[in-house]
Amino acid sequence: MTARTGSFPTAVVVTIGDELLSGETVDENQATLAAFATAHGFDVVSAHTLPDDTDAIARTLTGLRGRCRLCLVAGGLGPTKDDKTRRAVAQALGVALQRRPELVAHLEACFARLGRSMPPANLVQANLPEGAEVLENRLGTAAGFVAGDGPAYVVLPGPPRELRHVLAEAVRPRMAALGGRPRRATRRYRCLGLGESSLAARAEPVLERLARSFSAYPFHVHYRAAMPRVDVTLVFETDDPPPPDVLRAFDDALAAVLAPALYGIGAAGLAARILAALSAAGETLATAESCTGGRVATEITAVPGASAVFTGGAVTYADAAKRQRLGVARTDLERHGAVSEPVARAMAEGARSAFDATYAVATTGIAGPSGGSREKPVGTVWIAAASPDGTTAKRLRLHGEREAIQHAAAGWALKYLWDRLVADDLARVTHRDDDAQKAAS
Amino acid sequence: MTARTGSFPTAVVVTIGDELLSGETVDENQATLAAFATAHGFDVVSAHTLPDDTDAIARTLTGLRGRCRLCLVAGGLGPTKDDKTRRAVAQALGVALQRRPELVAHLEACFARLGRSMPPANLVQANLPEGAEVLENRLGTAAGFVAGDGPAYVVLPGPPRELRHVLAEAVRPRMAALGGRPRRATRRYRCLGLGESSLAARAEPVLERLARSFSAYPFHVHYRAAMPRVDVTLVFETDDPPPPDVLRAFDDALAAVLAPALYGIGAAGLAARILAALSAAGETLATAESCTGGRVATEITAVPGASAVFTGGAVTYADAAKRQRLGVARTDLERHGAVSEPVARAMAEGARSAFDATYAVATTGIAGPSGGSREKPVGTVWIAAASPDGTTAKRLRLHGEREAIQHAAAGWALKYLWDRLVADDLARVTHRDDDAQKAAS
Repeated sequence: MTARTGSFPTAVVVTIGDELLSGETVDENQATLAAFATAHGFDVVSAHTLPDDTDAIARTLTGLRGRCRLCLVAGGLGPTKDDKTRRAVAQALGVALQRRPELVAHLEACFARLGRSMPPANLVQANLPEGAEVLENRLGTAAGFVAGDGPAYVVLPGPPRELRHVLAEAVRPRMAALGGRPRRATRRYRCLGLGESSLAARAEPVLERLARSFSAYPFHVHYRAAMPRVDVTLVFETDDPPPPDVLRAFDDALAAVLAPALYGIGAAGLAARILAALSAAGETLATAESCTGGRVATEITAVPGASAVFTGGAVTYADAAKRQRLGVARTDLERHGAVSEPVARAMAEGARSAFDATYAVATTGIAGPSGGSREKPVGTVWIAAASPDGTTAKRLRLHGEREAIQHAAAGWALKYLWDRLVADDLARVTHRDDDAQKAAS
Repeated sequence: MTARTGSFPTAVVVTIGDELLSGETVDENQATLAAFATAHGFDVVSAHTLPDDTDAIARTLTGLRGRCRLCLVAGGLGPTKDDKTRRAVAQALGVALQRRPELVAHLEACFARLGRSMPPANLVQANLPEGAEVLENRLGTAAGFVAGDGPAYVVLPGPPRELRHVLAEAVRPRMAALGGRPRRATRRYRCLGLGESSLAARAEPVLERLARSFSAYPFHVHYRAAMPRVDVTLVFETDDPPPPDVLRAFDDALAAVLAPALYGIGAAGLAARILAALSAAGETLATAESCTGGRVATEITAVPGASAVFTGGAVTYADAAKRQRLGVARTDLERHGAVSEPVARAMAEGARSAFDATYAVATTGIAGPSGGSREKPVGTVWIAAASPDGTTAKRLRLHGEREAIQHAAAGWALKYLWDRLVADDLARVTHRDDDAQKAAS
């Protein structure tokens, strides 16, 4: 509950591309670079997105001199005419571009592997600012590089896969030399089912009490909402993380007040936690989706090793598919409509049986924009969970556009299944930070 | 093929939140705001992401004075302690914060609707910089506002749904007054199947010729890769868009060289184009997914009205589900393995039959991180398409992490289906810019 102390080295993220500034592309690289710097103990103080314009890039990079320790730059290293980053970095450092024979060889090898001759345009990718150190990119033609100090400019290719590869293989080993240090300790409380201000109203009095009781471990809190999910994250200001007993006191105090929404502590996502709980209990899982159209299965299968628990699922969009694939009764469809409690329950039970699983979760709803009525407006969704002990269901009233409703319904369905596992004593809220499970949210 | 002319009014986007700078959240709002400004004829010259720190925000906003016409700001308007934007804007403008009675009433009404009393913390949301104009937010407690001129700071709530709502309802009607004008004409060629530099090598000679032939319509080109998809976008520098005949000349010349990868021109996505083609032909579609785990169905069901064509799909993760739900022969699974041409073909044929559809697409592959072998490494994926005329299949060799492989395989499967529709004379590459279809990519 203190302000940032500024005791950590600072970093700035710069991403480059006209397509980012026209809004055509969501800039994932910014988050990747910010997370990477944070993981190496840097305080990321700002991020900037710039057009494919040599002067604009050079001006911003020059303006950062003496203002941060590290500057991570992504994009603008390709062979096409909109790529200006190499020249801009050279300009900011006041040096020339220099053709690097090892990069010419790398380019030739890349094209040889594809059985093609190198387009002459690609040769510009062999030019680097004088004195730059090459960051090898085995996945593409654009090598990264490090140049300058105060800040050190670490320049990376823009395609996200290549960016992550070069970060992991070439930048990570250099981070200690670049000023990196162990990351700041954080504690992340993961919630679904209450809004940001409700969670804050519950958490703040407890956090004030904890700040007084554990004044040797000052922290600040932030709330991240990606509805329906909200994370409450504590960032500790100390160099060393609080000892396990202190963290346990934080966990217990917060779990008590966040309880209806809290499903976990730490990086592991909801789907990963569900799969781990089912796996530990020797249970299996199937899905039956209508309005979510495959999003529940997508979240589940994003988790490595999902195949040990998840047997399969049906996306039953047409009523006939609900009847024939999941055994939903025609009378239920006719009497109650496809978006109804009896149909949601029958879908969950049908998925258990069709996919030979012990647990199943189902969704049926109206995602819009059309299909709503006065009685069942767009956003009306029924979710159901089935197990050997029986089937339960719940109605949601969601808001927003089609994809927001589809996404939110998938999240709620997973949380509903999680609550069932907790009630069945197969799952409980624990701290799990395993990286392998981060993928699923 | 010219530099940017600078003849358009300029805008800057500022997004605020510690969670953006720690990399926990991908900043979708930046793209939303950039697209909005671009759509109203602004040139977005840069975007900046700042921490929840009043001074840092105020410093950046002050630095933009006289540097752009419009500054779109998102985030930091909530009731929790990490929200600093209102105070920072007041500081940048050198005015005080003022409690606004109409916003107190709005807050009270919001909580009354939820049947709850207002937490006292929320009252800060009724404070605005002196002289600010309220931008009503009917979806949440945080109102937006406009303050200042040179630039005009347009300040919006951070939750993406609320942001889009306030943009559409309260900002759009003010855009003419804020300096907006008709957007710059663009032409977007959408590709899947060739990389950025291959597409550039094919396109650049044609574009140079077109630039000479149609010198009254100067343009620049950019390439956006979200593998396996690449868009080649022309942005015209003229106030008026080129006439239809000129655009047709561009389309024809580029379609000829981009052909193996090009599936469309304009905003409509691949799934939307597939559904439109099938719908026009009176055909229906089903899916059978293993390694893509629901991602193909997700892309299809993201398109409004998908239910008219898409009957349903199966996510068959377990071999038993492939046999029982899709009729894959046990001998094929045993002899060739689940990731094989015969199984992919049988899955597509089984989906046609199980979901009573005329067309079906199937995927089976090894997404990793485990499960690969020397003969079938991680990234080996078979895709198949089935129709009344028969079934075809193709092997892919994809690279990257689990989710990248799953995502790429889903894109390739849709493109493979599209190519089948083209071969069957049900689909062809056309210009379609319909907004309703933008959602799907």
